[in-house]
Amino acid sequence: MAPAHPAILAAIARANDGYERSYGGDAATVRVEHRFAEIFERDVRVFLVGTGGAANGLAISQLTPPWGMVIAHEASHIQVDECGGAEFFSHGAKVLPVAGDAGKLSPDSLRHALGGFDAQSVHAPQAKAVSIAQATECGTVYTPAELQALCAFARARGLSVHMDGARFANAVAALSCAPADISWRASVDALSFGATKNGCLIAEAVVFFDPARAENFAYRRKRAGQLFSKSRYLAAQFEAYFEDGLWLRLARGANAMATRLSTGLGAISHVRLEYPQQANEVFVALPAGMAERLRAAGAEFLSWVMPGDPAEGRLIRLVCSWATSAEEIDQFVELVRRG
Amino acid sequence: MAPAHPAILAAIARANDGYERSYGGDAATVRVEHRFAEIFERDVRVFLVGTGGAANGLAISQLTPPWGMVIAHEASHIQVDECGGAEFFSHGAKVLPVAGDAGKLSPDSLRHALGGFDAQSVHAPQAKAVSIAQATECGTVYTPAELQALCAFARARGLSVHMDGARFANAVAALSCAPADISWRASVDALSFGATKNGCLIAEAVVFFDPARAENFAYRRKRAGQLFSKSRYLAAQFEAYFEDGLWLRLARGANAMATRLSTGLGAISHVRLEYPQQANEVFVALPAGMAERLRAAGAEFLSWVMPGDPAEGRLIRLVCSWATSAEEIDQFVELVRRG
Amino acid sequence: MAPAHPAILAAIARANDGYERSYGGDAATVRVEHRFAEIFERDVRVFLVGTGGAANGLAISQLTPPWGMVIAHEASHIQVDECGGAEFFSHGAKVLPVAGDAGKLSPDSLRHALGGFDAQSVHAPQAKAVSIAQATECGTVYTPAELQALCAFARARGLSVHMDGARFANAVAALSCAPADISWRASVDALSFGATKNGCLIAEAVVFFDPARAENFAYRRKRAGQLFSKSRYLAAQFEAYFEDGLWLRLARGANAMATRLSTGLGAISHVRLEYPQQANEVFVALPAGMAERLRAAGAEFLSWVMPGDPAEGRLIRLVCSWATSAEEIDQFVELVRRG
Amino acid sequence: MAPAHPAILAAIARANDGYERSYGGDAATVRVEHRFAEIFERDVRVFLVGTGGAANGLAISQLTPPWGMVIAHEASHIQVDECGGAEFFSHGAKVLPVAGDAGKLSPDSLRHALGGFDAQSVHAPQAKAVSIAQATECGTVYTPAELQALCAFARARGLSVHMDGARFANAVAALSCAPADISWRASVDALSFGATKNGCLIAEAVVFFDPARAENFAYRRKRAGQLFSKSRYLAAQFEAYFEDGLWLRLARGANAMATRLSTGLGAISHVRLEYPQQANEVFVALPAGMAERLRAAGAEFLSWVMPGDPAEGRLIRLVCSWATSAEEIDQFVELVRRG
Repeated sequence: MAPAHPAILAAIARANDGYERSYGGDAATVRVEHRFAEIFERDVRVFLVGTGGAANGLAISQLTPPWGMVIAHEASHIQVDECGGAEFFSHGAKVLPVAGDAGKLSPDSLRHALGGFDAQSVHAPQAKAVSIAQATECGTVYTPAELQALCAFARARGLSVHMDGARFANAVAALSCAPADISWRASVDALSFGATKNGCLIAEAVVFFDPARAENFAYRRKRAGQLFSKSRYLAAQFEAYFEDGLWLRLARGANAMATRLSTGLGAISHVRLEYPQQANEVFVALPAGMAERLRAAGAEFLSWVMPGDPAEGRLIRLVCSWATSAEEIDQFVELVRRG
Repeated sequence: MAPAHPAILAAIARANDGYERSYGGDAATVRVEHRFAEIFERDVRVFLVGTGGAANGLAISQLTPPWGMVIAHEASHIQVDECGGAEFFSHGAKVLPVAGDAGKLSPDSLRHALGGFDAQSVHAPQAKAVSIAQATECGTVYTPAELQALCAFARARGLSVHMDGARFANAVAALSCAPADISWRASVDALSFGATKNGCLIAEAVVFFDPARAENFAYRRKRAGQLFSKSRYLAAQFEAYFEDGLWLRLARGANAMATRLSTGLGAISHVRLEYPQQANEVFVALPAGMAERLRAAGAEFLSWVMPGDPAEGRLIRLVCSWATSAEEIDQFVELVRRG
Repeated sequence: MAPAHPAILAAIARANDGYERSYGGDAATVRVEHRFAEIFERDVRVFLVGTGGAANGLAISQLTPPWGMVIAHEASHIQVDECGGAEFFSHGAKVLPVAGDAGKLSPDSLRHALGGFDAQSVHAPQAKAVSIAQATECGTVYTPAELQALCAFARARGLSVHMDGARFANAVAALSCAPADISWRASVDALSFGATKNGCLIAEAVVFFDPARAENFAYRRKRAGQLFSKSRYLAAQFEAYFEDGLWLRLARGANAMATRLSTGLGAISHVRLEYPQQANEVFVALPAGMAERLRAAGAEFLSWVMPGDPAEGRLIRLVCSWATSAEEIDQFVELVRRG
Repeated sequence: MAPAHPAILAAIARANDGYERSYGGDAATVRVEHRFAEIFERDVRVFLVGTGGAANGLAISQLTPPWGMVIAHEASHIQVDECGGAEFFSHGAKVLPVAGDAGKLSPDSLRHALGGFDAQSVHAPQAKAVSIAQATECGTVYTPAELQALCAFARARGLSVHMDGARFANAVAALSCAPADISWRASVDALSFGATKNGCLIAEAVVFFDPARAENFAYRRKRAGQLFSKSRYLAAQFEAYFEDGLWLRLARGANAMATRLSTGLGAISHVRLEYPQQANEVFVALPAGMAERLRAAGAEFLSWVMPGDPAEGRLIRLVCSWATSAEEIDQFVELVRRG
């Protein structure tokens, strides 16, 4: 809901100069691929797309055949928030939802989930991939060590790993790690790299860390209506996003606001923080009637539904963006404090 | 694994006389639809198909759009045993697996499962159908009252109900009820009616209890390669199957053998019956090493995998058919008794 | 390849002010739907999407079931230029390519094409829709009368009509007609309304003229990753595009440049105009070797492939945009004149 | 419409003896694969399925990705008679219909068809396979030399070759060649081997001549509901079909009857044979009103629709089976002679 960062808009305006090759043949799109390679410290294949849902669905379709199965958290975006997009793009691969603390999967949860399927049997959907979110849908992050353990388990079972990085910048900022540490160095195969939620207008990408995994992906993207004729405008956003570390500055700012919010709310006895705040989101269980009062006072937020409904319908999600100010946070905390 | 019943084979031989219309235009196929109508005590639309997997997948594709979601037990055939067929036939509808005692779903389990999805949101897969098995994958049966409660809940939420009746005859026999009592009278919309497992060679059907629900289904069946040119041979099997109640006689026999088996095994302290025996299947947890000894002694059975693996890999499934004899049962029980 | 019009960019910058509802709930997106209603002189349902390929595929998926068939010109974008997108979005509906003069279909060509299919038979793909382009892939336009005749034939056969309007503005400008005259007044059901090729950055829409035809379309769009979280930036482009008739001014300019080009080239004996120039494209067959010489001199254009290859590999496509200047045209004509 | 041959029925009855492994693990299914290997003089991978439509759709899905294109005759079964099954099984690959004399494709017709697509472009559907029928839908056959030329052209363009062999036995009988001569020796990759139309009840197979081409095909078959639990009854039919050359005896008989019919009709001046009779089908254009008179006299046949309708709605198809007698032929010819 936040506006785009002025530097991103300025870059779009600069890009609007004269003729350029269409459909990704433009100079900016080529430069962006190099820029991603620098940021991830290795050659990568990058495909710009329009939405995070498309990035996830297309990436997953590349990692599993239609008769395959992809394991995901039961609260993951691909399970509950993309209207079945993973099944759509993958031509009906099965998504197996799995429970896990605070939005995270673990080797144990994978082992347990796979236990219900006989991998040797032609009757069973064939497990082919795991899809995880970083940061997760619960606002938590996997540490590099957690990711390595998870991916090692996946690898041993022959599963590829997809990462939904709609909030990847927030995870990098939260962990103060290299982007590589929570992607290919931990054995992630494909990353949905989101920039829209962190200051861009429309800027998403699918990143493959092994060029062989990207084979034929260009056809999938085109066929799905995700190859943009004026690709230069997507590319320009990424160029500005990476310029001088803007992306991490914005993410750190959003994370810091979430910490301020979490700290403030944590000191209030009549609300309960549902998950540890680690990135730019805070989940709070409110007492009955408070959501209505907060909204009446002008606050805007989403009521949040989780599988199993741990907070009996009283969970809300609070998201901080690059544009969130300390004043807004303090105002909101004060509203909650008053009840 | 059992052979077909001689009466079924004889019917095929009788059908093989002279020319007949192809692709379901034959007299026998027309008669079979009337026969189904008598058995279910109402007009029905019947579509013969070749396998239970096709019956399930096609029926489900009729009850949910591609962006819909169908809820099923986590151990259901459509979830673990059809290599993603429900997703294939439905063009990627989401299958939501749900836990439930002894293979059964309940209104509570549905309510809990739906709680993770915001039905008002365009982002959420839209719940459109429930698929249940009768008898279930755990060899249990829903009573008419249980079915009515489940379907009433489904109806109230706008969900259609599909029943996987691969063992429908065993359920009718077990409950001594009318076929209608556990199908349309309980608000089931579409039934996969299986006959292959109960004495036929290749004989499955999709039954719709409201003709309007069958609209365009003929195209789906044809397109999926499930319209047989020599439909008369499928029809002949069903005619013999229904003749003089053969189908229920065979099912009662199989159920009785399962009861004999269950009773015998239940008296042996070193094995554990996993689910109540209600139809023609018995699930037993064996002590370590016993499966191997039984197989060495000539017994054949499937090791059984269940989500969550309640028996730590020592569950086996024993299926009785119309051809199972009391001697075979007693021999097996004796083998188990000896350990 | 042309840049966006400054007014479009300015509108995006203006939209970037403060918080807004996401996923199309913003004020601008709501306003745009009203704007479309004014322009088409009736209530419409409008869905913003990211690319013309997505608009076409999604619109077609709404007009035909998976077992249906959509008839299109053999050189249409959906047949040769979208990597099978129509089949992808429609879950495998059949696209039937049909020949036709200068990119246009006629009642006769439809009648001829349908003649190969037995509509009464469950074996035959069921013809459900016609997809036409306005302006066409050959740079020609259907007159309102031609459209009415075509759509009347379609209607009589039970076919819906989709219009690929990637160059809709150019067609309206060429015909000096009301947008309604070449859409719903002629019985078109769904329109892919393109703005990207006529001065916008990323701005496409699917327009339904009967709200009932749009039922459930929101799920299709979401599922396909075409619902943009920051919809306001798409909406802003459309607002500017329609402001004070900008869209038609730009289209008239591009058309005029194409006329200038066509007139210039038409006077040169060693090249041949392949199709009548009616919108903003000119197709010319060059003598051997000339394409190379023109490119060496700095000209940029696409070699054009048509089914049947009428010009033996020497056809080129020349597209004029809102940004094309008379000087550029005259320079190019002079280059061609010199050979 | 003809009954099954008694030897086929007897084999089914013989197969119905005692317990057998299900889902293709039975001894008969294993033996059948060896039998196919003998008949084709090389190792093959064989997958039994239930219908010709499923065989075609599944085989094609193995030879093209969803973004690919398969070229077929405009009157081919996959284009006009399977309700879009090729698109269904292949997840929306494009079927490109191509004209050709008497149901046959040629290198020239392929070259012409491919001319409309820019293979280098990510926008174009990618041509991946050719599908031909042997015998064709017009009752003609490709000679081994014609097949070699066609497949060589396909190979050079990177296209795989699928053969719809619903009438493969008739083609082998007509050509007096080895089955290998019109399949793998001519570079065919996958064959839909039909037996249902030539004396079996339900017996179709997909044959791959290179085991590598069959990779993962077992999952596709299972997922599509085409893996039969009682596979032994399909296998038994094939065993009897191949026993002592029964399959070719039956096909030669049917072909001979078609020749008798064609000769008889060819001598009647008021009807016109539409295509050369080479296998077991005869296509005749009747004078106005004659079809009705023949039907009134008890004859049964299909009115035949061809793209372009060469006979102005007066074409009929006459099919001879193993069960057709000379008397039936002579009776029919006499009826036609009388007008």
